[in-house]
Amino acid sequence: MKLRVVILAAGKGTRMRSDLPKVLHQVAKKPMVQHVIDCARALNPAAIDLIYGHGGDQLKSQIVGDDLNWVEQAEQLGTGHAVQQVITFIQDDENVLVLYGDVPLLTAETAQRLLDASADKELGLLTMYLNNPMGYGRIIRDEDELIQGIVEQKDATLDQLRINEVNTGIMAADGAKLKQWLQDLSNDNAQKEYYLTDVVAMAAEQGVQIASAQPDDTGEVEGANNRQQLATLERAYQWRLAEQVMAAGATLIDPARFDCRGSLNVGSDVVIDVNVVFEGEVRLGNGVVVEPNCVIKDAEIGDGTVVRANSHIEGAKVASNCKVGPFARLRPGAELADEAQVGNFVEMKKSRLGKGSKASHLTYLGDTQVGEYANIGAGTITCNYDGVNKSTTEIGDGAFIGSNSSLVAPVKIGKQATVGAGSVITREVANEELAVARGKQRNISGWQRPQKKGS
Amino acid sequence: MKLRVVILAAGKGTRMRSDLPKVLHQVAKKPMVQHVIDCARALNPAAIDLIYGHGGDQLKSQIVGDDLNWVEQAEQLGTGHAVQQVITFIQDDENVLVLYGDVPLLTAETAQRLLDASADKELGLLTMYLNNPMGYGRIIRDEDELIQGIVEQKDATLDQLRINEVNTGIMAADGAKLKQWLQDLSNDNAQKEYYLTDVVAMAAEQGVQIASAQPDDTGEVEGANNRQQLATLERAYQWRLAEQVMAAGATLIDPARFDCRGSLNVGSDVVIDVNVVFEGEVRLGNGVVVEPNCVIKDAEIGDGTVVRANSHIEGAKVASNCKVGPFARLRPGAELADEAQVGNFVEMKKSRLGKGSKASHLTYLGDTQVGEYANIGAGTITCNYDGVNKSTTEIGDGAFIGSNSSLVAPVKIGKQATVGAGSVITREVANEELAVARGKQRNISGWQRPQKKGS
Amino acid sequence: MKLRVVILAAGKGTRMRSDLPKVLHQVAKKPMVQHVIDCARALNPAAIDLIYGHGGDQLKSQIVGDDLNWVEQAEQLGTGHAVQQVITFIQDDENVLVLYGDVPLLTAETAQRLLDASADKELGLLTMYLNNPMGYGRIIRDEDELIQGIVEQKDATLDQLRINEVNTGIMAADGAKLKQWLQDLSNDNAQKEYYLTDVVAMAAEQGVQIASAQPDDTGEVEGANNRQQLATLERAYQWRLAEQVMAAGATLIDPARFDCRGSLNVGSDVVIDVNVVFEGEVRLGNGVVVEPNCVIKDAEIGDGTVVRANSHIEGAKVASNCKVGPFARLRPGAELADEAQVGNFVEMKKSRLGKGSKASHLTYLGDTQVGEYANIGAGTITCNYDGVNKSTTEIGDGAFIGSNSSLVAPVKIGKQATVGAGSVITREVANEELAVARGKQRNISGWQRPQKKGS
Repeated sequence: MKLRVVILAAGKGTRMRSDLPKVLHQVAKKPMVQHVIDCARALNPAAIDLIYGHGGDQLKSQIVGDDLNWVEQAEQLGTGHAVQQVITFIQDDENVLVLYGDVPLLTAETAQRLLDASADKELGLLTMYLNNPMGYGRIIRDEDELIQGIVEQKDATLDQLRINEVNTGIMAADGAKLKQWLQDLSNDNAQKEYYLTDVVAMAAEQGVQIASAQPDDTGEVEGANNRQQLATLERAYQWRLAEQVMAAGATLIDPARFDCRGSLNVGSDVVIDVNVVFEGEVRLGNGVVVEPNCVIKDAEIGDGTVVRANSHIEGAKVASNCKVGPFARLRPGAELADEAQVGNFVEMKKSRLGKGSKASHLTYLGDTQVGEYANIGAGTITCNYDGVNKSTTEIGDGAFIGSNSSLVAPVKIGKQATVGAGSVITREVANEELAVARGKQRNISGWQRPQKKGS
Repeated sequence: MKLRVVILAAGKGTRMRSDLPKVLHQVAKKPMVQHVIDCARALNPAAIDLIYGHGGDQLKSQIVGDDLNWVEQAEQLGTGHAVQQVITFIQDDENVLVLYGDVPLLTAETAQRLLDASADKELGLLTMYLNNPMGYGRIIRDEDELIQGIVEQKDATLDQLRINEVNTGIMAADGAKLKQWLQDLSNDNAQKEYYLTDVVAMAAEQGVQIASAQPDDTGEVEGANNRQQLATLERAYQWRLAEQVMAAGATLIDPARFDCRGSLNVGSDVVIDVNVVFEGEVRLGNGVVVEPNCVIKDAEIGDGTVVRANSHIEGAKVASNCKVGPFARLRPGAELADEAQVGNFVEMKKSRLGKGSKASHLTYLGDTQVGEYANIGAGTITCNYDGVNKSTTEIGDGAFIGSNSSLVAPVKIGKQATVGAGSVITREVANEELAVARGKQRNISGWQRPQKKGS
Repeated sequence: MKLRVVILAAGKGTRMRSDLPKVLHQVAKKPMVQHVIDCARALNPAAIDLIYGHGGDQLKSQIVGDDLNWVEQAEQLGTGHAVQQVITFIQDDENVLVLYGDVPLLTAETAQRLLDASADKELGLLTMYLNNPMGYGRIIRDEDELIQGIVEQKDATLDQLRINEVNTGIMAADGAKLKQWLQDLSNDNAQKEYYLTDVVAMAAEQGVQIASAQPDDTGEVEGANNRQQLATLERAYQWRLAEQVMAAGATLIDPARFDCRGSLNVGSDVVIDVNVVFEGEVRLGNGVVVEPNCVIKDAEIGDGTVVRANSHIEGAKVASNCKVGPFARLRPGAELADEAQVGNFVEMKKSRLGKGSKASHLTYLGDTQVGEYANIGAGTITCNYDGVNKSTTEIGDGAFIGSNSSLVAPVKIGKQATVGAGSVITREVANEELAVARGKQRNISGWQRPQKKGS
């Protein structure tokens, strides 16, 4: 049977107090609805309907994919009304899974479990058990444990209030049946809304057996209507990722101070210290140590490399047994070969340090290629920009750049060449040459120091 | 009826193990007793009595205000004894509210609720309900729910121990009555102390109806006697602020890693990443993003500006759509016009970057005015200090300062002027001029590199 | 009676997914087994047996001490089998305490409590009371409260399952008796393992009275079999240290964001802000303030010194009333005399700042001795390395080093000497002399700026 996933994403989210539609608020720097779409895609559906309302243009600019069938729900008249918008798309032979754009932590495993449970049924509900079911619709079962309906909190009898199996809103239904039930929905209630949950009672009345399944944890089906709830989802999601990273064999010094927005791939015996933030695609090789307060984005870090505290790495590739930081900044295009070292207050951009080369202090390397075993002295600045153009610097194997030098690009420093400290180098230095470019020192005795002005 | 607030602040706080009197220990970088005074002031009282004992000089140096009536309690003989110290100040027609200098989280709303509840009564108590009332004085009510007294834990019967309404110590009383009760207090007890709570039994005996009110949460009435409790208050206070900021429409990536010591005003759709600390008065415009590990104090950040990770901002004004950091340091007097950029390892002090100007790397700008769309190269240093005087640097619109230059103040760089990389500029550069000041490069071939000494 | 401590450390720790044997995984940067050995040593034992199995070479390279009797357990056939390996070492007149290399948080106080409780008994068990004893072996006592045995979860009757006193595995036994019991152990069970806990039933059968004692908190006896449990132990240990530091009189702004791997000694009224990490031996004097996100390792910080945010200190000695940071890096051998200041983006290595001297911005001081009240301008670089040798720089009292200067070591700057901004100093500057070494400024008008290349 083909699968159709219907994602309800029309809400405004007034309580978010935001210019963004609710489902674009982010968990782990990804819009909530994108999490739900990713979950849906993992189920290999034949179609995904995205029912939008508020902020359609914003949604369409951020959410992409040819597999999405965008359907507008111009007025928001309830969850049943939302699904009614796709009634013409639903095929009789489809299985229809209803998900919510503001319930981002649902796993594909849980969704698949519901689909499996309802494979030979015309309706399946994702339910859960709560110690404190207050506020939720209770699942009513008969003496044979068959689901008879859902009773909302306000309509429940005292006995029903004691039921701790509750509705999550997530359901799977046979296409033909669902279309019929949707057509029969009524808005004869206080809110004048069409409730999707009413199909459960209809089905039960028709003698339809209703399947059920449960999520691994109740956090999977929590939604966010305000920033506090959004923060709760963020932490729950981060905790899930932290557990995955630990299960993969990394030591997290504090799982509560671990953040990953994207995907983190770890080798064996990686240690991640407190308060490290990962973004995008990051790979850490075997034995990598990341010290506290680092931000690492879209980067690859090789085996045995240590990233010292308070470093910032983005779009960089660091090979094995390197030392980076503390206070290093690797910008996009930075590349370190094995055993290279980048120290404190050093910035690299579109630059490469060859094997064993070092830039240890207060240096800017931009558009620079450094060979092997070169030493870039403290305070070295590559002058790669003339106001309009960027130019490149080449530094050969074994070169020694004296401290506080300026290398005015385009310029080439040969192999084993030496630049004297404090030099401004504007033309090529050949292999093994020494280049010096600085003023002559004059010592003046009897010099009168400046006096305090004013007062 | 006029309001008089009596604040008990005489305790030494031995368990703090400190040279400071207890009430000067801080929550959110503000002394506990200052929180209580601020709460009192929000009630518009006619008078505030501050009853001090230990560390009077320290208190008076840190706590100021003409509205404070400082009264010494030379010996500490109990809470009743403390309030007795102000008996000569209390007017018959005043309503007297008793607060505690080491109970800093009480809100003015809760205090006002107690005052409102006891408006037409001669006594009112702030009470609270606890699941586990162990250790607290229980509130004894008669069959009509009228308060009869307070029974301390050690004196309570088994039935009384089951009562979960407890005394917070905070009370409001009619001035005339309170004076009479205070005079009747006895220290006929094991501790030989005068207990303020004894007035409750006196009042009940006299047939006085006793009002009550409750705080929004029990944390409001918790005190701190040691550093662990102080830390608990700090976190409770920070959580309260985090909730307020989220309710105002900001996304906090982790509310448990948010700290504010002062006031934070946020526009719409602000995102505050993990481990950011705010101090003093901070305003963040619409859409501001603050990345992890920043410290921001007494600053204004305009709409759409991004403060990148590990930046430190203090006493600065940043306009709209700027980029700051990572690893930027803005010191007092730093100012960025719209679209200005300050990058890594850059420090600004009493300096202004005009619209669209950039100082991206390893730069110190002190006492410097930069026009619009100027570019300050990597490693630029303004030499603004001669050992005794500070001098200013002016950089015109569209100027280009080559990397690793030194600008020796006082000096002026004209509009569209260019400074060659590595130059030391000591005198004015006119508009559109190029200035270069560096040594001539000499390349020496056949140069013998230094040899390893020793061994 | 002499004490012998037997430490079981043979486990592989498959669930750690690691190349390290389990007991080498670290809590607070110290191997778990080292914590246990340190606990054992605090009891002044006559002997410590370390029973190892997997990763013996790794263990022996990391764990040292002449007092350790290394005994291999080639096959792992249960806890009883492990202790059987030392049967030939156990003396009849010894008291034998069995500890576990993967249970690192046990305190010496708790261990001593067990030894005291069993001083006149032939067997003593460390037990604990759990609200939820699920999974643990229950302690069976007779009507006289005498321990009769331990029943494992799977073998327990319904009544036994309700018992909430459980076995921790830690025991103390008379040497002679223990040897006899060990010899009688059988592996007649599903796992075919020899269980140490079986000695309890043997002893009870023999009418031996069994002593018991309890830990202060149940975390003391938790072990780590995977990274999640390791993280739990790490946080429990850090919380314990945080409580100790607060009890000693330090304010922790957030005890949940405090990390110490080593020992931290605090004076009075120290304030430690959020997310500070201490390593090695650190001493903080009275009134020291450490701002957020600092890492401090093997350092001594004097009274009244402020370490500002995002600083990194290692192997340094900072005297009283200094200011360090933000963004300062003090490397091994850095030393600050009283009132010295090191500011942002400044690195010091094997260097000393005399009383009142300042290096406030973007500076590298390596192998440099600075006298009193000297001022090191922004961007100053000591050029201490010629590619093979390190040389020293001396800067006299009251010297003024102009900004962006390079001091090419070995070089000496005299007292009250001045170096002009942007100079490269290669030879000695005498007392009170001014030295300048820079190019002459040329201003060129009518200069044509570079054009954008390409397009």
